[in-house]
This record gives sequence, structure tokens and C-alpha cells, in this order.
Amino acid sequence: MEKIRVIQYGCGKMGKVFLRYLHEKGAEIVGAIDGNPELEGKDAGEVAGLGFKLNVPVHTDADSVFESCDADACIIAVASLMEDMLPHLERAARYGVNAITTCEEAFYPWTTSPAITNRLDRLAKETGCTLAGSGYQDVFWGNLISVLAGATHRIDRIEGVTSYNVEDYGIALAKVHGAGLSKEDFRREIAENDSLPSYVWNSNEWLCSQMGWTIKGMKQELVPTFHDVPLKSETLGTTIPAGHATGMSAVVTTETYQGPVIVTQCIGKVYAPGEVDRNDWVLKGEPNTTVQIACPATVELTCATLVNRLPDLLLSPAGFFTTEKMPAAAYRTYPLHLYVR
Amino acid sequence: MEKIRVIQYGCGKMGKVFLRYLHEKGAEIVGAIDGNPELEGKDAGEVAGLGFKLNVPVHTDADSVFESCDADACIIAVASLMEDMLPHLERAARYGVNAITTCEEAFYPWTTSPAITNRLDRLAKETGCTLAGSGYQDVFWGNLISVLAGATHRIDRIEGVTSYNVEDYGIALAKVHGAGLSKEDFRREIAENDSLPSYVWNSNEWLCSQMGWTIKGMKQELVPTFHDVPLKSETLGTTIPAGHATGMSAVVTTETYQGPVIVTQCIGKVYAPGEVDRNDWVLKGEPNTTVQIACPATVELTCATLVNRLPDLLLSPAGFFTTEKMPAAAYRTYPLHLYVR
Ligand SMILES: NC(=O)c1ccc[n+]([C@@H]2O[C@H](COP(=O)([O-])OP(=O)(O)OC[C@H]3O[C@@H](n4cnc5c(N)ncnc54)[C@H](OP(=O)(O)O)[C@@H]3O)[C@@H](O)[C@H]2O)c1
Repeated sequence: MEKIRVIQYGCGKMGKVFLRYLHEKGAEIVGAIDGNPELEGKDAGEVAGLGFKLNVPVHTDADSVFESCDADACIIAVASLMEDMLPHLERAARYGVNAITTCEEAFYPWTTSPAITNRLDRLAKETGCTLAGSGYQDVFWGNLISVLAGATHRIDRIEGVTSYNVEDYGIALAKVHGAGLSKEDFRREIAENDSLPSYVWNSNEWLCSQMGWTIKGMKQELVPTFHDVPLKSETLGTTIPAGHATGMSAVVTTETYQGPVIVTQCIGKVYAPGEVDRNDWVLKGEPNTTVQIACPATVELTCATLVNRLPDLLLSPAGFFTTEKMPAAAYRTYPLHLYVR
Repeated sequence: MEKIRVIQYGCGKMGKVFLRYLHEKGAEIVGAIDGNPELEGKDAGEVAGLGFKLNVPVHTDADSVFESCDADACIIAVASLMEDMLPHLERAARYGVNAITTCEEAFYPWTTSPAITNRLDRLAKETGCTLAGSGYQDVFWGNLISVLAGATHRIDRIEGVTSYNVEDYGIALAKVHGAGLSKEDFRREIAENDSLPSYVWNSNEWLCSQMGWTIKGMKQELVPTFHDVPLKSETLGTTIPAGHATGMSAVVTTETYQGPVIVTQCIGKVYAPGEVDRNDWVLKGEPNTTVQIACPATVELTCATLVNRLPDLLLSPAGFFTTEKMPAAAYRTYPLHLYVR
């Protein structure tokens, strides 16, 4: 096979890392899209800070990019909810271009956005391409847990605590975490907003799907996090007053008909000095197993996972094909196209 | 498919756990073999302490067991080195019975015992069955690392430290760790004995094979461990004097032509009070990822992994088929035969 030809769709904080990883893993970057008019016409290599030109200009008009190249795949890093992602995923599917996205809901969107997902699934099957969501959760809330489960005789309960810094990401992520909101606004816009699945809602469902467990009940509690002194946020472009939310802690409890219960706490907030990312899980049953990832580099891990997933994406059947049905995430020593038979 | 019919071959410390796990996961136990004449004729359920009879007697004559039943698979838990395993694996292969073994060398025996492995591979292909090695290392020195690698952009070096208590296992394991030997005997029998691959020798090779890395060099250093006061060992049936080895630390360094270096330290010794099992790894590159498993329950994890592997074993092609070529280890919620299409 020739090199995998990729459109980078979204050249924000993640997109810049994707461009470098794609280049270093031997993908052919054939297009770059971003909504920001200031980037229009700029070279993707320069936007990504590669230190050299890729001779691929960033364009705001996504359709013109899809029309003017013949891409095998695109990486979409623009939004966190399926509703916001619909036009982008639909576009990729319409052009028959395989797409993988950082959209957290897309990791397992079958029940939180069934209509959108089914529609995309159908469209992708018609044009013969595959759509999927991946990211940090693919390994750290997903495959890592299922691989440890593979060494377990009986699982009664799975508990996870994961934490990341809203500052490492763009404004889309900050917003769904209620970062900067007053207590009152947080209550109205986030806590009482049923239509906002927290990231671990979808990852718990992913885990259940991979394990073959049927969900009996899902419960989500969104609690704002605070800091005792004002906290400056680059992403928000403001300082968060002491009484305002720095982000949130979401606790999602998933009960299954098979017995196992999954309780995942997901903390996303503007970190105070000294706070670090964490990812700690325990599988309870026979035996109990505790796993701890010290200070995971969530940004790099996210981007590496998606890029490593490109061969799987190309080898998967057409449709919206979530990653719990793909092989476990794998490292790519060689240029990506060598993994596509 | 009907229930998977299994012969438990070796009813020692591991074998007893296997019998229970097999029973609880809906396997049909059709035979039990053990070399200990005291167990001859005893019920396997009673030997395993299940609290009820399985109506399967333990026999010392392995051939008579293979001849008198029609088994799909056997779990062999008798020895740590391929040389010692040859008659047992050969027997299973001769009867065309798929076999998975806890033998640590069998995890990846292609270069430490190529002649034995190739001979078994050929025999298994002739009779149409699969032979493999699995255990704790399959997940904790294997799939756990490769799944984290799946979230990594560039790997320069992988470092692992793993430790287990010789007391949790039988005499075969204690012996290859030099537990109880004087300094002088350790030097002669263990440190200078080239033909003794430590467990992580084989698991490093497993990792390289799964990653698609070619090995440039392997180096092993075996260092005895000591305790400052005499240490009682149930497994050895003696007290280890203060100046004698309580076990050993093996450091295996694997260099690859692709660049990544794997350095794994494997500590197996009679624990002093307060010491616990550990399994800590770090992947160095972009980014760095540190994983820590607190007090892994190595015995249960070993047995669960092998039992969970049975469907993979039955679905694998004939021959000696090591697990790095199988799907990642997976939890079995339902009776084992439901995972065999
Ligand atoms: N799954 C994971 O593990 C994971 C990890 C990290 C991030 N994420 C998610 O990935 C997404 C991107 O994150 P980020 O940190 O890169 O955010 P970011 O820095 O805000 O970048 C998003 C980029 O997408 C562009 N964009 C937005 N709407 C667009 C549209 N309609 N058409 C074209 N481009 C558009 C934005 O342009 P403008 O500046 O003009 O809006 C921006 O450049 C977020 O939703 C985040 O939550 C997921």
C-alpha cells in the first residue's frame, strides 16, 4: 500500500500535535482544515510548529479541501459532543473518507446520541468508509482495563478515578466542564443539563460493550470543583474567581444485568499549581487488582492513540465502528501504511 | 459448541486453583493428572478443596488419562523449563489435545529452546492441536505493556521491575531461583549456568515479537538475594540461613535493531515479613508513561489468565502458537465455550 493520505481536520491544540505525529509516522498529509480565519492559507507545517513547511495550506472551507484531494482518512479534533460533530463526520462520510475523532462522545455514542450515530452509520456504509472515536480513553479508560480484566477470574466492581487539566486543551473542552462558571450558572448549564454526558459516561458504555455486559442503569453526578484563590486560565483567557467553578468532577455509575458495577470519577478542571494528571483504577472481585498511571501525559497519549489507530480504522468494516470492536490499541514502529494489508 | 472438556495436568498449588476456576467458568473437567502417588485415585474436587466431588479421580499415569477421555484442552502446570516440559507437551500433542502451560519458558521458547519448540510445533501441526504458554506474564509483562505502547508515539526504552514470592509457588519455581542455596552453590548452579533463561528473558522476547522488533542482543545477570536473619520457607521445607540465597534478581537487557531497549528486572525470592508483590513499568520516549500494579495477586492472576485463554487456544491455528499472536487477553463473563464460535 501507498502511504496513508490524511486530512487534519481541526488545527487547534490537538491538531498541531497530530500534524507532527502523522508526519513522523510516515503519513502523507494532504489537507488541513480549521475554523479560525487567521490560519487561512498558512502552511500546516508552520501552524504545527514543525520548523519546516508541509506545503499544505490550512483552509477554513472544509468542503473545498475534501473536494481537492483524495484522502484515505481524516483526524477530526474540533468538538466534544456528537451534535456539534455531526456536520464534520457527515462531511467525511459523504466524501467516503474514513474518519477518526477526538470527540469524547464519539467514543461510544450509540445510546447518548443514537439518532445521529445511526444516521452517520448508514451514510458511512453507503459510501464505504469507517467512522470512529478514540483518544486517551481508548487505552486508559478502555483497553487498559479490559487487558487487566483478562487476568481476572471474577469481576464484581470496577472503580476508576481520572483527572486532567482543562488548560491542556482548547475552549470546547473547557466549556463542557463548566470551567469559569459561577455556582449558579454551573447548576443551570451543567449539573441540571441532562443532555451533557460526561466523558466517562460514554467510556463506561464502551467497557460494557466490550465485556458483553448489558446495562441496567446509568447514573451521573456532576459536581463543580473550586480553588481557594483566584486561578488564571490561559484557555478561558480570564482569571477564575475563588467562588467559581474551576471545572468539574463527574461520577458515573453503571449497573449491569450480569452483576459488575462500574463507577468512574472523571475530574477535569483548571489545575492549581502542583496538581497533576492521574488515572487510577481498581478491579474488584477475584482477585483485586489496582493499577496506577503516574502523571499520564494526556495530550500526547491522546494524539498517539488516534494516529496509531489509523491502520485499524482503515481495516475496519464500513459504518460507525467503535473501537471496542477493534483489536487492542497497538504501537506502530514502522510507517503506518505498513500495518494495512 | 458443547462445554470445553479439560484435563488438569498437574494438581499442585496452581492446579488446585485451576480446577476451581475451570469449574466456575463452566468447563467440563474430564481428567486430572499428578505425579504425586499420594493423590492417586483421590477425587479432583477434594484435592482442589472445592468442598464437593467432581467425580474425576487424579491419576499418576498420564497416558491412561489421555486415553480414557476425549478432551478439548489441557492445562499443564508442572515445570518451568521446556526441557522438563517436553514429555508433557509431547503427550498432549500426540493425543491431539490443545495444551496451555504455565511453564515460563513456554511463553516464548523459540530462541531459548528452538529444537524442542520446533519439534513440538511440527507434532502439533500433524495432530491438529495448538500448544501455548501463558500466565501472569501474558498480561503483566506482555499485554499490559503493549496496550500502553498503543498510546505511545515513540518508544526508546521500556523498563520493568517485577517481584513475586517463591513461597506462593511450588518447588520447581523455588529451585530455578536458587532459593536456599549457599553463595557458592548459587554461583555454580544458577549464575554461571547459561542454560537457565530467567522468566523475563522469554517475556522480553515475547514483547519484541509482538512489537515486530528484531533482537540485536540479549544480556542476563542473575544476582542472589539475601535476608539479614534466617528465613523459614514452607516451599523448601527448611529455614534459609542468613548467608544463603533467598532467591534471585534477574536483570535481562534486550537491544533491538529498531532502537528500543527493554530492561526487565525480575525478583523471585522467599519474602521476608512485610514484603509484597510488585509490577512496575515505565515506557520512555514520547511521552513517558509509568504504570504501577500494587500488590498483584500473582497466583490468582496467573490461573485466571490461563483459563481465560482457553477459547483463544481453541481458536488458534495448529502448532506451537505463542500468545503474542493471539488477541489481547480478555475477561470471560460467560461459560468458556460461549467464546468459541
Ligand atoms: N478524546 C480525547 O482523549 C481528547 C483529548 C483531547 C481533546 N479532545 C477533544 O478534542 C477536541 C479538540 O481539542 P483541542 O484541545 O484541540 O481544542 P482547540 O484547541 O479548541 O482546537 C479545536 C480546533 O477546531 C477548530 N474548529 C472548531 N469548530 C470548527 C469548525 N466548525 N470547522 C473547522 N474547524 C473548527 C477550532 O477553530 P476555531 O479556533 O476557529 O474555533 C480549533 O482550531 C475537543 O472537543 C476536545 O474536548 C479529546
